Amino acid sequence: MKIPHEVLKIIEDIRTMRVRGAGKIARTAAKALIIASEEYRGTSLKEYLTYMELIAERLKNARPTAVSLPNAVNYVLSRLKKASMEPSSTLNKAKFIVRESANDFIKRSFEAIKKIGEIGSKRISDGEVILTHCNSTAALSVIITAHHQGKHIEVFATETRPKFQGHITAKILAKEGIPITLIPDSAVRYFMKDIDKVIVGADTVTANGAVVNKVGTSLIALAAHEARVRVFVAAETYKFSPATVLGELVMIEERDPTEVVPPEYLYENPEVIVRNPAFDVTPPEYIDAIITEKGIIPPQAAILILEEEYGWVLKDYFIKELNFAEES
Amino acid sequence: MKIPHEVLKIIEDIRTMRVRGAGKIARTAAKALIIASEEYRGTSLKEYLTYMELIAERLKNARPTAVSLPNAVNYVLSRLKKASMEPSSTLNKAKFIVRESANDFIKRSFEAIKKIGEIGSKRISDGEVILTHCNSTAALSVIITAHHQGKHIEVFATETRPKFQGHITAKILAKEGIPITLIPDSAVRYFMKDIDKVIVGADTVTANGAVVNKVGTSLIALAAHEARVRVFVAAETYKFSPATVLGELVMIEERDPTEVVPPEYLYENPEVIVRNPAFDVTPPEYIDAIITEKGIIPPQAAILILEEEYGWVLKDYFIKELNFAEES
Amino acid sequence: MKIPHEVLKIIEDIRTMRVRGAGKIARTAAKALIIASEEYRGTSLKEYLTYMELIAERLKNARPTAVSLPNAVNYVLSRLKKASMEPSSTLNKAKFIVRESANDFIKRSFEAIKKIGEIGSKRISDGEVILTHCNSTAALSVIITAHHQGKHIEVFATETRPKFQGHITAKILAKEGIPITLIPDSAVRYFMKDIDKVIVGADTVTANGAVVNKVGTSLIALAAHEARVRVFVAAETYKFSPATVLGELVMIEERDPTEVVPPEYLYENPEVIVRNPAFDVTPPEYIDAIITEKGIIPPQAAILILEEEYGWVLKDYFIKELNFAEES
Amino acid sequence: MKIPHEVLKIIEDIRTMRVRGAGKIARTAAKALIIASEEYRGTSLKEYLTYMELIAERLKNARPTAVSLPNAVNYVLSRLKKASMEPSSTLNKAKFIVRESANDFIKRSFEAIKKIGEIGSKRISDGEVILTHCNSTAALSVIITAHHQGKHIEVFATETRPKFQGHITAKILAKEGIPITLIPDSAVRYFMKDIDKVIVGADTVTANGAVVNKVGTSLIALAAHEARVRVFVAAETYKFSPATVLGELVMIEERDPTEVVPPEYLYENPEVIVRNPAFDVTPPEYIDAIITEKGIIPPQAAILILEEEYGWVLKDYFIKELNFAEES
Amino acid sequence: MKIPHEVLKIIEDIRTMRVRGAGKIARTAAKALIIASEEYRGTSLKEYLTYMELIAERLKNARPTAVSLPNAVNYVLSRLKKASMEPSSTLNKAKFIVRESANDFIKRSFEAIKKIGEIGSKRISDGEVILTHCNSTAALSVIITAHHQGKHIEVFATETRPKFQGHITAKILAKEGIPITLIPDSAVRYFMKDIDKVIVGADTVTANGAVVNKVGTSLIALAAHEARVRVFVAAETYKFSPATVLGELVMIEERDPTEVVPPEYLYENPEVIVRNPAFDVTPPEYIDAIITEKGIIPPQAAILILEEEYGWVLKDYFIKELNFAEES
Amino acid sequence: MKIPHEVLKIIEDIRTMRVRGAGKIARTAAKALIIASEEYRGTSLKEYLTYMELIAERLKNARPTAVSLPNAVNYVLSRLKKASMEPSSTLNKAKFIVRESANDFIKRSFEAIKKIGEIGSKRISDGEVILTHCNSTAALSVIITAHHQGKHIEVFATETRPKFQGHITAKILAKEGIPITLIPDSAVRYFMKDIDKVIVGADTVTANGAVVNKVGTSLIALAAHEARVRVFVAAETYKFSPATVLGELVMIEERDPTEVVPPEYLYENPEVIVRNPAFDVTPPEYIDAIITEKGIIPPQAAILILEEEYGWVLKDYFIKELNFAEES
Repeated sequence: MKIPHEVLKIIEDIRTMRVRGAGKIARTAAKALIIASEEYRGTSLKEYLTYMELIAERLKNARPTAVSLPNAVNYVLSRLKKASMEPSSTLNKAKFIVRESANDFIKRSFEAIKKIGEIGSKRISDGEVILTHCNSTAALSVIITAHHQGKHIEVFATETRPKFQGHITAKILAKEGIPITLIPDSAVRYFMKDIDKVIVGADTVTANGAVVNKVGTSLIALAAHEARVRVFVAAETYKFSPATVLGELVMIEERDPTEVVPPEYLYENPEVIVRNPAFDVTPPEYIDAIITEKGIIPPQAAILILEEEYGWVLKDYFIKELNFAEES
Repeated sequence: MKIPHEVLKIIEDIRTMRVRGAGKIARTAAKALIIASEEYRGTSLKEYLTYMELIAERLKNARPTAVSLPNAVNYVLSRLKKASMEPSSTLNKAKFIVRESANDFIKRSFEAIKKIGEIGSKRISDGEVILTHCNSTAALSVIITAHHQGKHIEVFATETRPKFQGHITAKILAKEGIPITLIPDSAVRYFMKDIDKVIVGADTVTANGAVVNKVGTSLIALAAHEARVRVFVAAETYKFSPATVLGELVMIEERDPTEVVPPEYLYENPEVIVRNPAFDVTPPEYIDAIITEKGIIPPQAAILILEEEYGWVLKDYFIKELNFAEES
Repeated sequence: MKIPHEVLKIIEDIRTMRVRGAGKIARTAAKALIIASEEYRGTSLKEYLTYMELIAERLKNARPTAVSLPNAVNYVLSRLKKASMEPSSTLNKAKFIVRESANDFIKRSFEAIKKIGEIGSKRISDGEVILTHCNSTAALSVIITAHHQGKHIEVFATETRPKFQGHITAKILAKEGIPITLIPDSAVRYFMKDIDKVIVGADTVTANGAVVNKVGTSLIALAAHEARVRVFVAAETYKFSPATVLGELVMIEERDPTEVVPPEYLYENPEVIVRNPAFDVTPPEYIDAIITEKGIIPPQAAILILEEEYGWVLKDYFIKELNFAEES
Repeated sequence: MKIPHEVLKIIEDIRTMRVRGAGKIARTAAKALIIASEEYRGTSLKEYLTYMELIAERLKNARPTAVSLPNAVNYVLSRLKKASMEPSSTLNKAKFIVRESANDFIKRSFEAIKKIGEIGSKRISDGEVILTHCNSTAALSVIITAHHQGKHIEVFATETRPKFQGHITAKILAKEGIPITLIPDSAVRYFMKDIDKVIVGADTVTANGAVVNKVGTSLIALAAHEARVRVFVAAETYKFSPATVLGELVMIEERDPTEVVPPEYLYENPEVIVRNPAFDVTPPEYIDAIITEKGIIPPQAAILILEEEYGWVLKDYFIKELNFAEES
Repeated sequence: MKIPHEVLKIIEDIRTMRVRGAGKIARTAAKALIIASEEYRGTSLKEYLTYMELIAERLKNARPTAVSLPNAVNYVLSRLKKASMEPSSTLNKAKFIVRESANDFIKRSFEAIKKIGEIGSKRISDGEVILTHCNSTAALSVIITAHHQGKHIEVFATETRPKFQGHITAKILAKEGIPITLIPDSAVRYFMKDIDKVIVGADTVTANGAVVNKVGTSLIALAAHEARVRVFVAAETYKFSPATVLGELVMIEERDPTEVVPPEYLYENPEVIVRNPAFDVTPPEYIDAIITEKGIIPPQAAILILEEEYGWVLKDYFIKELNFAEES
Repeated sequence: MKIPHEVLKIIEDIRTMRVRGAGKIARTAAKALIIASEEYRGTSLKEYLTYMELIAERLKNARPTAVSLPNAVNYVLSRLKKASMEPSSTLNKAKFIVRESANDFIKRSFEAIKKIGEIGSKRISDGEVILTHCNSTAALSVIITAHHQGKHIEVFATETRPKFQGHITAKILAKEGIPITLIPDSAVRYFMKDIDKVIVGADTVTANGAVVNKVGTSLIALAAHEARVRVFVAAETYKFSPATVLGELVMIEERDPTEVVPPEYLYENPEVIVRNPAFDVTPPEYIDAIITEKGIIPPQAAILILEEEYGWVLKDYFIKELNFAEES
């Protein structure tokens, strides 16, 4: 069972982060499943299922720390499995299910961003000053929707070291005509007195309501909490991690030192260790609410979203099933 | 009364920040007073005094936000004034006083750093991990002295945006053989769980114990406070600001946007405002102690140091004298 | 379709606050629906439905900031709509449904207060000193039930500026034979050291567990939190706001300045602005539990109550339905 | 209806705490129900049911403050009642149900500890230092499972006055080969700087997420919170108290002074009162997560577990049924 | 030794609070000493001294809780005693000393307010919004001075129950042309998000830096602290209490219930207790700085002011002398 | 120069802690100096001085962690040195100085306790409940003095593991007729809601206002701070450590494991490490005031006491002198 070249390329792109951002990774993985399915040349439904599970596994391993990746893949695979258990299932029907559910995932992912914008923007009042960090599509959706509603808002964006995603955020907002100020990450507490609300995105939301997001988010949330400034996290529900219910720790990826210092510096100062964690963890006590496409929730209700989404969270058989999976 | 060319150059160097760092500015100003004094070609003591006051004024205005600058200049000028009031005063004696007191200031400034190293290093225990910010000579003196005492310590240094002074700090400590890790400013809360103590420098210490230092210091102190990690500020006593006793606010200098973004970015995104404050203010509740060359004090005792140093703090005539100065 | 005079009067009474208090407004609106229904003289079920929707809309708009009002109206209307979709529905049956469900709402509203008293009183121990604010029927139900159980309790009531509802609270409790002390709102922190528990009512409970209640409540909760005094909110479930799940901000009503100062003062000091917000928002971190007629919950579980009550919270179709309603 | 001698002995053993620990009490009560059932010599199903209810009541009253006791008894009794309502029910079937469900409870109780170990151990990283209090089987399951996974961990155990259960904890962990340090309870804040995580058990978890556990737990959680050290509670779901949803306060048992001082001391100092509360209450804000056999939850989601477990929490009929039970 | 009628009237005015406000009481007492001195008709210096001590005692007892009163009286008496110990002292000289020192006190008291305005106003920046409480001359001096400097500031004033001193504050500031908003005391947390700085006066400053001021001040300071809003106390140094160094508690005066409720209410509800504390205590951790006429200090340096002012604080003989005073 | 047998025995008693408690150690050391002096059989003043310095050194090394020990010894030695520098000094005069100043120290030490009782007792109000820890003479002086003043107070005493000094405290207070309750250390947070004030002693007070006292003190202070209960430390000024001004860390003594567990336990469980720190450090933010014999101060003014007591703190020559001492 050969994996199609195009799918291999996608896996490589995710691994090397040519494709990045939790949402983009998820949608690209869904698309890869369609491609793999269409490229399948065999005639056995059973073989097809094994093939698709192999693809799914390879995709999930491409970036083991991104929760949106397995969530997207499982969205499709669970529907495929369920359908293939029916007596009337055929290979064609199975391929149809993959196509439909992958496209459905992609469509819902875009709708979620729009919906988060609609819901979240209601929490922004005319005249408010917003602080955001990094370059989150969901957070920007909230801000830009509020702007389109005619509210006069102003935004502060952190430059977001080491990769300066804040430069992109500032450019986008400037184009929308929103007054925008760019500041170094370390100036966050200095400007906090001028901020009315903090709105950031999320990479992963855990079972107990902690939010894993671009490094620096937890510092901003801490400084906001100190100044009674409310902190909102904009997160599509597929960023909620069911594995964390079972104790799984979210691994924090550490990236290449040369993102932080030029290679010469490392060469000239070989004893200097440079550490470059991509994310940090903001505890629920510093988050006022999470804005999802299904409504606004307190972080402690993340587990409710997980139960709604995955149906089996906190239920006995889930645990049994999972054990089974681990043993086989 | 022409100001000597060499003095004018020093004033310009301070203004354009070719000379920077609170300590260096102070010592350079002291040196400028010697040069000005030696270059004086007149014969009248009275004219000399007017001339020196002019120089002093020009020096102090070169960087109005640096408290160490007027403290250095006043150190010399107050001695000159006092001596010149004596009946036996002559021009030669006056020049001698300027030379002696300026050199004395410079010497004491170097001794202070050494003394701070001796005192502060006693607070560092074997095996501790220290976090420092920016590139403070006084803070490094504490760290390196502890290392020289044979204590096995480890240091985390922030890169310190926008000018990356942390690169220099890391280089210095690596040369000393101290294990050193360089991190982005935004990763401070992520690594705080591994830190035993925070040691930073100070630009200005105010009457109520707040510390003005490189932007980001207050965020670090906040994150340390959250994690019960002790924060020490290493500061020579000439960084304590007597003017703040009388309500003077410490002005926070905002520097050029091009330190933060490349000029092209500003050109391509003319609506994006970039703000670049050089310092921020850490409130006394996040500082455990200030290490001065005269001993360790709680931040709330800063006013005691001011009283010791300036003799007239909190005293009636000080206020009168100051008013007088303002009126004339 | 003329709106009956008696119903118009009720709408006006709600608008001008002759009828006030979240519970009373809700029950009065339910009663208005019965009156409107009984007064309907037409014969067409379809016309009747349109008529009732008009009444419902007018009632809801009478006081747009009170969440109990739409909750009461929707309680009746949703039952009416559901029943009228059945093939066997008739005008008479529809009127019956309105009568039944409106009366049911009213009865449940009274039962809820009794039930909250039973549940909440178990949390009060013999000898405790309770602080309450304003004049909340639900909070008083807890206090008086505990007293009837023979517990020796004592109560502090704030006077509750500007309308002095605390005077009524004190009078009620005094009649019950409960030792009662009346204090100015500003003395809350002074007396907090003598308080064992704070029990207040709620105007609105939001999706993330914040409580909107009489202005001053958040200050009391803050001072209680500072002193490790537990804060309980007594709230019937119809005060939970489903709209806040979708981001709706609870509008804080600002009332007439003459409630705060006499008209002469305004006349003599025309430049003095007087602001008089009726409510403030207490964040969930200062609330230990909310006592509802369905049990005691942490504020973060407010969303669970909303899901139980409205069935459709956090579910896709809810959002679609709502959008539909907005578009039509 | 005579209660069998063996069952009476078990009731006495629970009352006098020869049997203790929330889990052991629960399992012993389940076993007592089997014995009682088997010993029943009558032939009437109706009489048998009355008899079993009497046994259940007596068992529950043996230690009124332990929530695991009624939870275990109700687990069996609710199944018995439901089965006996079926038309086909017979005495033999009823006895079978008691035997099966009691054994089921016991088996699930052991499995829960194992499962908590598996789930919780994922949250422990290599090299971490854990602090635990008292002697909790569930907490030890987490620690020992992590150790068996090859993680190099180290543990601090408090001695746990007055009965020194920490001595047993230290002995168990030492036998497992885990480096273990025993400290007095009062030294907890002194050593907190060396701790990475706190893991403790629970006696009772309440509806709003507070945890009742061995006295001293709340002090440890407070000191951990002060130092940003995460606190985990390991608790089987049968330790969650449904009664607290309805306002029931968890009674804190006060035990004999001679556990604290030798009898001579009391004799020689008759005016000295010695108080010896067995438990204290840790508020949810100091608990990061509760590890149950069904997954990790934030403390505020305790009510979700209660709803899952008891099915009827927060539902109208629950309240009615309960009232009924109280009246009859 | 008859006390002059005019002096008796002043004593009565202070007792019944026709004269009130810490500053006014102090100055009126100083004036009373002059009157008493001038009215003295005897010829014996010794008798005069006894007479003046009697007057002093009577004045101090008129309002035992006001620290400014003994401070004013002692200011004059200590100078009188010292002068009368000199060999050359005469009755005339003694009367001169009383006149001079009392007038000096009064003049310094006015100058202090002006000086506090000058010093404190430097801490207010253009565009800031200030919150003040009650009607403090010193706090208003800061605000109005900043306004006169051309800074565009805005003020929120609490109404200050029960005596509505905020109405006067609002009137004064409106006349100055400062935009002013009057709010109920309970709305303080609601508006805190709009406030940049809190500036209040003080009745008494204690040895450990706590500030006794109009009831409600500590609530405001707490709410400001929660929101990282800085709190300044404007206090003349004669409001610092030397007796608190020796442990003396500041007594909080409780005033008449009819200030809070109309007499009818008390008549109709005789069981309702009304408590009306005039002041509360703000702990030093909620105060950023105290603005005195001698400079700005952190609250913890209050003891330094006391040492400066009274010369003998913390010194052995002070304690001895005081004991002596207590014994005789 | 033989050290007298009796002095050697005292040194040994201090070393092995037969003599313990900061006050007792200090007074015993003073007495040892008198004995050594009287026992000196030589005739050379110079030799006598060398001999006394040797004795002083030996005494100070007997328990290097107790600050009261060098303070007592230096009190005598500094007076001896000063006197012996005078031209008229003789051996007899020198012996006289030692006798006088050692007795003076002892007398002042007792007076300090009495004075602390007088000053501190003013802060205790009728009806208050006090919590104390360990067995501090100074803290008990405050409590018992308040009781003698007729105030009805009640005391909670912790048992104070591992050596149960709380048993002694309870016995003493019971004999005084003060209602006293003894509790395990771990129950402190459970009872904190009943406590009005915490009063503890101190072993050492550091330059930045931290208090080193019996292990557990910092936990109590933390729990008090959480509940807005005020914490007072009763400390004679000779417990303030001048060396900490120069950075000296206070060493925390760790004592024998057999104080915590019986030797058998160690024998049977050789892998169990038992740690037994005698003290912990309470940071100044949890201490409301320190009660000294010279008055009540905020902890941040500890440095003021040090300056008063030692005269040279914060002054240049002190540092020089100290360096000199270190070099020679």
